[in-house]
Amino acid sequence: MRATLLYAPTLRETPAEAEVISHQLMLRSGMIRRGAGGIYTYLPLALRTLRKIEAIVRQEMDAKGGQELLMPIMQPAEMWQETGRWDVYGDEMFRLKDRHNRDFCLGPTHEEMITTLVKSDVRSYRQLPLRLYQIQNKYRDERRPRFGLMRSREFIMKDLYSFDKDEEGLNESYDKMYDAYTNVFTRCGLTFRAVEADGGAIGGSGTHEFMVIADSGEAAIVYCSACDYSANVEKAELKAIITPEEDLKMLTIVDTPQTKSIEAVTKLLNVSADKTIKTIVYTTDKGSILALVRGDHEVNEVKVQNLVGCLTIELADEKTITETLGSAAGFIGPVGTKCSTVIADSTVMKMYNAICGANTADQHYMNVNVLRDFSPTLVADIRLIQENDPCPHCSVPVKTARGIEVGQVFKLHTKYSKALKATYLDNNGRETPMVMGCYGIGVSRTMAATIEQHNDEYGIVWPVAIAPYHVVIVPISAKDEAQMSLAEQIYTSLNACGIEAVLDDRNDRPGVKFKDADLIGYPLKITVGPKATNDNVIEVKVRRTGEVFNFAINNYLEDIKALLAAL
Amino acid sequence: MRATLLYAPTLRETPAEAEVISHQLMLRSGMIRRGAGGIYTYLPLALRTLRKIEAIVRQEMDAKGGQELLMPIMQPAEMWQETGRWDVYGDEMFRLKDRHNRDFCLGPTHEEMITTLVKSDVRSYRQLPLRLYQIQNKYRDERRPRFGLMRSREFIMKDLYSFDKDEEGLNESYDKMYDAYTNVFTRCGLTFRAVEADGGAIGGSGTHEFMVIADSGEAAIVYCSACDYSANVEKAELKAIITPEEDLKMLTIVDTPQTKSIEAVTKLLNVSADKTIKTIVYTTDKGSILALVRGDHEVNEVKVQNLVGCLTIELADEKTITETLGSAAGFIGPVGTKCSTVIADSTVMKMYNAICGANTADQHYMNVNVLRDFSPTLVADIRLIQENDPCPHCSVPVKTARGIEVGQVFKLHTKYSKALKATYLDNNGRETPMVMGCYGIGVSRTMAATIEQHNDEYGIVWPVAIAPYHVVIVPISAKDEAQMSLAEQIYTSLNACGIEAVLDDRNDRPGVKFKDADLIGYPLKITVGPKATNDNVIEVKVRRTGEVFNFAINNYLEDIKALLAAL
Repeated sequence: MRATLLYAPTLRETPAEAEVISHQLMLRSGMIRRGAGGIYTYLPLALRTLRKIEAIVRQEMDAKGGQELLMPIMQPAEMWQETGRWDVYGDEMFRLKDRHNRDFCLGPTHEEMITTLVKSDVRSYRQLPLRLYQIQNKYRDERRPRFGLMRSREFIMKDLYSFDKDEEGLNESYDKMYDAYTNVFTRCGLTFRAVEADGGAIGGSGTHEFMVIADSGEAAIVYCSACDYSANVEKAELKAIITPEEDLKMLTIVDTPQTKSIEAVTKLLNVSADKTIKTIVYTTDKGSILALVRGDHEVNEVKVQNLVGCLTIELADEKTITETLGSAAGFIGPVGTKCSTVIADSTVMKMYNAICGANTADQHYMNVNVLRDFSPTLVADIRLIQENDPCPHCSVPVKTARGIEVGQVFKLHTKYSKALKATYLDNNGRETPMVMGCYGIGVSRTMAATIEQHNDEYGIVWPVAIAPYHVVIVPISAKDEAQMSLAEQIYTSLNACGIEAVLDDRNDRPGVKFKDADLIGYPLKITVGPKATNDNVIEVKVRRTGEVFNFAINNYLEDIKALLAAL
Repeated sequence: MRATLLYAPTLRETPAEAEVISHQLMLRSGMIRRGAGGIYTYLPLALRTLRKIEAIVRQEMDAKGGQELLMPIMQPAEMWQETGRWDVYGDEMFRLKDRHNRDFCLGPTHEEMITTLVKSDVRSYRQLPLRLYQIQNKYRDERRPRFGLMRSREFIMKDLYSFDKDEEGLNESYDKMYDAYTNVFTRCGLTFRAVEADGGAIGGSGTHEFMVIADSGEAAIVYCSACDYSANVEKAELKAIITPEEDLKMLTIVDTPQTKSIEAVTKLLNVSADKTIKTIVYTTDKGSILALVRGDHEVNEVKVQNLVGCLTIELADEKTITETLGSAAGFIGPVGTKCSTVIADSTVMKMYNAICGANTADQHYMNVNVLRDFSPTLVADIRLIQENDPCPHCSVPVKTARGIEVGQVFKLHTKYSKALKATYLDNNGRETPMVMGCYGIGVSRTMAATIEQHNDEYGIVWPVAIAPYHVVIVPISAKDEAQMSLAEQIYTSLNACGIEAVLDDRNDRPGVKFKDADLIGYPLKITVGPKATNDNVIEVKVRRTGEVFNFAINNYLEDIKALLAAL
């Protein structure tokens, strides 16, 4: 491709609308443009990278028995009403009516559609397993679309659905997809982790998220450097921490004026935080909840939500605390509480002579002992894992990192096949629901996540496998005939042997061309200047490392191939 | 691909919902399934053919300087309101609101979006010409979606938009696209014609439609076998037919009881139809219109509509004729009409002593002479061309055919660039509107049109270039180890040399497999039976011709390559 023909309008300034680096760099390098909030046009450079990611995804899906099809984006409401998700999705679903006033949505996902499809054509166990996938636009009306392609309203997904005879088949499909995802992200050149994740609203047990590691990631993950454990912090399990037994002392009240935080309490009473009980009040659709963790710990809301089975959960406001619970904000505690649901983290059960709020302004209890002074209605692991907490598998202190979720594999079991009556006849002629899994990759998000992980102060640093082009050739002067002729020759030779090259034939200053080359992030840059035309040496610079190689003109093709292969 | 792994659920019965052959065969061969009215899932076989058509389109667009990008499907209303098309599109446009109550549509086309995009990044004449295209779902809420993929509501289009400095540039872009389209449909193996077409509501002059010739086509076209003229009948121009001069006779009234049709009049009065004037009354948004053609001719409504510049046109009902015009249905005529707009076809101006309705029940005028007995307000070519009418270019009698429109090239000139203020600075620094063209190919429709043109009583007969697979290998007995082993070997060898093969490894009767092979329409079928295992001869049947070849097993690959190349 010649730069004069390439529609990649680069920008010198960072547009004010862009908060994260991938969004900034994709706008600046002329990869994307905004069509509306959270809705983008992919310009040619972006589309090339998307197509390369898609090709990798396709190969890996096909290698695991996946078959590609393409389902509608517009979906009739009826099937969503059958599974109950027409209501569950709420404002996140884009809805519309056709001219006959029939209800449709723009597919946020396709469980309903694929299950309805397979149900009509699959009758016998001989037709299973089936692994069907598509790559297609998905729609989600985010409350606050932002971060460019990281959280957009129209985005490209690969979604595969597996249909098996039984749980054993599902496990096999799941494992194959897990492997395929590992291959996909490895081939894309990404540093990532597959983490144990929480099932969330989709239901079903068994799910992993594939996280691209990046400081800007929205998700917090933990991992163990000793064993292969890693998990989304929302999911990571924790055992109770055992503390040495103590004699139970007498419950007393102390005055703690203006002492509303754990930090203030420990300072005033001169104790460490692990001697205090932190009490959090939540308002949920199942009523108010008191959640107790040790003072140096945090509550994991997702665990609380799953435990209670509530759809909504948020921190209670002061009015609820004072009026409904008759307590004083900042001084809440489980002793004598009016709250009917009290959930204690399992570590709280192992504490002795602890300190907690007395539900009266400016007072705390000392020497609180669980079961003697209060009894929780539920005891469970509701703690948020932290750096250096023991690994649930091997007890070595875990590390934390931030990640961008680019894929998820999910066991659906019979949730949708039962709701939509997708059954098959097993080898005894019995009607049996198919056992399903679903597996998503955010294709456009993977592109953005790659940039979040691979960039520097000058621009994007593409991994070779998904770079829009491999090499840019920059003649120092577009007016120098010898340079242009040599550059053309190199351009033709590279393309002829499958190395995708851009010839920057624009009549611009070399500085402008070099800046664009770095911004767009071609893995290699070949400079064709006097050294090339006079000394038969071409200069090749590696974008990622900054290394410069001088290759003799009679053998540079092999050298460049070797260089690309080693990147 | 192994048939046991291929998701292509074939049906023995023709589903009642399918009226046309492409719809029937795509359902029966397991290519598509209905998601909702006019909305389909493409199963693996269909998707492979679509991808092949897309690849051909891409190559031809790129060869003409096209650059691929991908615009949003969801488009904000504002840009459509700027060009006025938000209202023009009416019920055909799918509309929706986001959670903030902002208006969006699902793109039926992308002139507004691409012009807005280019406007923001293109400033200088140096950045032109630009030819940008995408391949993507388009949406049109058809009043009556039908015929499967021929008239659906969600369909795949390629749309390219050209931006040039001036009309000369536009002509060059247009010619290049015309050539590219010719290449695309030729490579797809289609018999087609590029016909002169009517501009319609999009406006602008200069447009051709690419029509796949098929009896089931919705469009009527004419073509000349002597010169290269061809046109949509709506567009085909006609010159006035000169008849020998006659002396003007006296206008008289004759009783013609119950004689409401041209046929009845000619019978009663014993004259030929070319002596009568046919008068048609239309109701339009610009009032009532009388259209006059010779009795053996038909009115071309599109020509009338363009002439008058009305948005809607329909035959007047009897009430309008009697109450508004004070005339009697079946006896309408231009002499003494109350209608203020009378349009005469140019041939009517050359008639002498003609017969027409007298606007009174059961009466006709005889010896009517234009300009003496009535004066039209407009004279123009408003006649519909018919078989054997003279070719507008060379006067040889034209032939008629039916076609399916699969592509259209269109000169937009400055319609959208002016409305959306998409200007550039010319080489004198003057702000100038870009000159645009648009060029569409119905990708999914091309697939259906191919089947309309290429089928027989047994199923689809794919052209090799866009067949989902090239060859199917059918072992007579899946239980015969020698046959299966040889079939596997052939399967591996074919795929290894790039011939896309399906191995029908299903444990079914040969008759079932042969039927499916014919239905799906693989260009070649290789039968592996006793003849193959005993005599080292494989039988290859050509789907299109029914020819059977026996190839020696030691050289069959070359033979098959040659056979495919010759198809």
